[in-house]
Amino acid sequence: MMNEEHLKDLITYLKFPSISTDSSYSNDVKDCAEWLTNKMIDKGLESQIYETPGHPIVVGKNKHREGLPTVMIYGHYDVQPADPLDLWESPPFEPRIDEGKIYARGSTDNKGQNLAHLLGLGEIINEEGELPVNVILLVEGEEEIGSPNLGPFLEKYRDELSCDVIAVSDTGMIGPGIGTFTYGLRGIACMEVTLHGPSTDLHSGVFGGSIANPSTAIARIISSLHDSDGKIQVPGFYDDVREIQEWERDAWASLPVNEAETLELTGSSELFGEKGFTDAERRWARPTAELNGIGGGYQGEGSKTVIPSKSFAKLSFRLVPDQDPEKILKLVQEHLESHLTPGTRIECEFGHSGKAYLMDPQSDYGKAAQNALRETFGCEPALIREGGSIPIVQTFKDVLGADTLLLGLALPDCQIHAPNENFLIKNFYDGIRLNRLLIKEISN
Amino acid sequence: MMNEEHLKDLITYLKFPSISTDSSYSNDVKDCAEWLTNKMIDKGLESQIYETPGHPIVVGKNKHREGLPTVMIYGHYDVQPADPLDLWESPPFEPRIDEGKIYARGSTDNKGQNLAHLLGLGEIINEEGELPVNVILLVEGEEEIGSPNLGPFLEKYRDELSCDVIAVSDTGMIGPGIGTFTYGLRGIACMEVTLHGPSTDLHSGVFGGSIANPSTAIARIISSLHDSDGKIQVPGFYDDVREIQEWERDAWASLPVNEAETLELTGSSELFGEKGFTDAERRWARPTAELNGIGGGYQGEGSKTVIPSKSFAKLSFRLVPDQDPEKILKLVQEHLESHLTPGTRIECEFGHSGKAYLMDPQSDYGKAAQNALRETFGCEPALIREGGSIPIVQTFKDVLGADTLLLGLALPDCQIHAPNENFLIKNFYDGIRLNRLLIKEISN
Repeated sequence: MMNEEHLKDLITYLKFPSISTDSSYSNDVKDCAEWLTNKMIDKGLESQIYETPGHPIVVGKNKHREGLPTVMIYGHYDVQPADPLDLWESPPFEPRIDEGKIYARGSTDNKGQNLAHLLGLGEIINEEGELPVNVILLVEGEEEIGSPNLGPFLEKYRDELSCDVIAVSDTGMIGPGIGTFTYGLRGIACMEVTLHGPSTDLHSGVFGGSIANPSTAIARIISSLHDSDGKIQVPGFYDDVREIQEWERDAWASLPVNEAETLELTGSSELFGEKGFTDAERRWARPTAELNGIGGGYQGEGSKTVIPSKSFAKLSFRLVPDQDPEKILKLVQEHLESHLTPGTRIECEFGHSGKAYLMDPQSDYGKAAQNALRETFGCEPALIREGGSIPIVQTFKDVLGADTLLLGLALPDCQIHAPNENFLIKNFYDGIRLNRLLIKEISN
Repeated sequence: MMNEEHLKDLITYLKFPSISTDSSYSNDVKDCAEWLTNKMIDKGLESQIYETPGHPIVVGKNKHREGLPTVMIYGHYDVQPADPLDLWESPPFEPRIDEGKIYARGSTDNKGQNLAHLLGLGEIINEEGELPVNVILLVEGEEEIGSPNLGPFLEKYRDELSCDVIAVSDTGMIGPGIGTFTYGLRGIACMEVTLHGPSTDLHSGVFGGSIANPSTAIARIISSLHDSDGKIQVPGFYDDVREIQEWERDAWASLPVNEAETLELTGSSELFGEKGFTDAERRWARPTAELNGIGGGYQGEGSKTVIPSKSFAKLSFRLVPDQDPEKILKLVQEHLESHLTPGTRIECEFGHSGKAYLMDPQSDYGKAAQNALRETFGCEPALIREGGSIPIVQTFKDVLGADTLLLGLALPDCQIHAPNENFLIKNFYDGIRLNRLLIKEISN
């Protein structure tokens, strides 16, 4: 039943350290794109690599026929950085199989999932000679850095990429064996803050007490972002937040997910977040302000009694409908500037951003997705939103006018973006079946 | 007039990267100690290297004679780390001379100053055959890490090291050409805080909003240390602080130091500190809580949307009479623990510490020091306290029962502990003269 060749393909795909955010890996990203385009051709699709100002986009197509619905399948072959390396139990780019899971950076996010789609298409072509729908398989190399070149690409090839619906497997399942349809995603807005104080590092004995310390000052502006309950204090931040609907609260409350599971998954002693919302509501439908990195002053062994000349903070904000990323970043910048310690100043560099996404799970294509999930997993699919961001899904809606069916295969303990990322091999094969059933459902 | 050999000796001494805090430099520290003991012998002293559990201590002595006062001269041959390396205009361990200054790590702090004492002693021995006082020249290799092995060394050799007064040149001059007698120093207490949250790094989209972020949480506890005016908020922190005396306020107000100079030296746009105190009072006689280093989460290029599992803060507190370092560290730990975000915990590792020091500048030896300064620089010496810490000075008082004359040669723009540390070559030669005059004054 399980085709061993498929697993070999996955292992090869995972060996490429296709880290998009770090320019020293550019050649590995390129090599990975070339392997992927060859694999598409091998499986019976036409395929082409499109160069961009950043990393290339790989597109595969079958021969399109008049009158058939067109499905775009989207994924990404780039991965997050692997650090901290010392916490990996095996090297991140040497896939290791253990107790039914494959461990490697990118195994779940997203190579395992997009390869499942390609191999599902390959199986249909192999068995039936052709696909019952028109397919565009689009796999990009810049998802982990916010897809800066995919929007312009969609605009440029808008006609060639015209489609009726889009399918993406880059989201989660609420538990093993429970087919999960994600009808909403949070958006994101990133900002790097550099806080400047004295023109050079100073001796903290000689000058301490009379000069603002940039590390202390950045800690103060960061702590001004939340109250002690975790509610965001930036004026206007919640103004455009759409309230969670009653049917959603009910549906989520009935799911077999709970706070104990979140505690176990995260290894936390206690949950912490905005009062008045459940764990799922906080993570799926409420906005956040997170500090992804902070640094300043002496970082080495021992102590060094210094007042640093500057410090940095890497911030990201998860957004919900109908928050606007640019507006949020401006509000945050104004707020931070109003909390500066005298003698310091900040520079804010706005990074990638994308709006939140929300579709109606009871639309025709939504129902097709629910049917495919029901048949693959043999149970009623869970209808959820997710906390992560795939900003391009909103861009698909804006440029191509199509909804995106998010049919993810990531399990809660898959450690995406973290050390020891892994993918359940059963999910890889279920993903191949899910692709075949979805193609059939859409062709009906 | 200026002996060129002296400058050559200084250049050789500065080439050793004798960084005590970083164990990868242990051999360089050792090599430096060996060079120094040979130089002492070369200049007519007996000298011996004493091994310790850490870095060695170098001791030089003349032949002691009954009835003469005994002067200990203390210095250190270890240096601070040189990072951030990219801000140095020339390599920190390749001394460069430019416009009358010598640039190198350790040039002012403290190799230039302790070598001046040794060379002054050498000149007297060369000219007069012997010294008019008994001298113990003690140069240690762990001052920059809090002198952990010097206290035990003093205890062990208490009799051999018995002395009437101690002279140290490791403090500052208030301006070029103004002899400066420092009669007080701030103490220090160091603490490294590690804040733990989830057991592994987490995806900030998946879990953000429901789990405390350790970087945000450490920023919050750091910002709890001060109010918005820079006053420390740790309960009990100021309880034992001795008030500044009226004659000190007057003396300091009359010195040619001012806030404009501090702004220029630090390249700050504005001073910031406790209300109701002058710049000098804040830096010399008020305690501080400084964040010397902070780190957590993604530190690389670009962005990584992660909730880190932990973050760290390196703190140091400058103390004044009569604060007790251990008591202060405990108060701070209690305060930090009372400001934790739910779901996080901290580990506090107490580092090196030392009490503040204060002596009477009008004592007999204090007057001898003032005379030597008056003759060397040709003007009335400035009487000041200093913001930095030389914890061992208090230990000298406790173990050996002797006061320490702090006759420093560091200029305000010498960049100690920072990139481009430098020493005015004129001060090096003035230091040699000052040593000779001090030895004469004490012998009278």
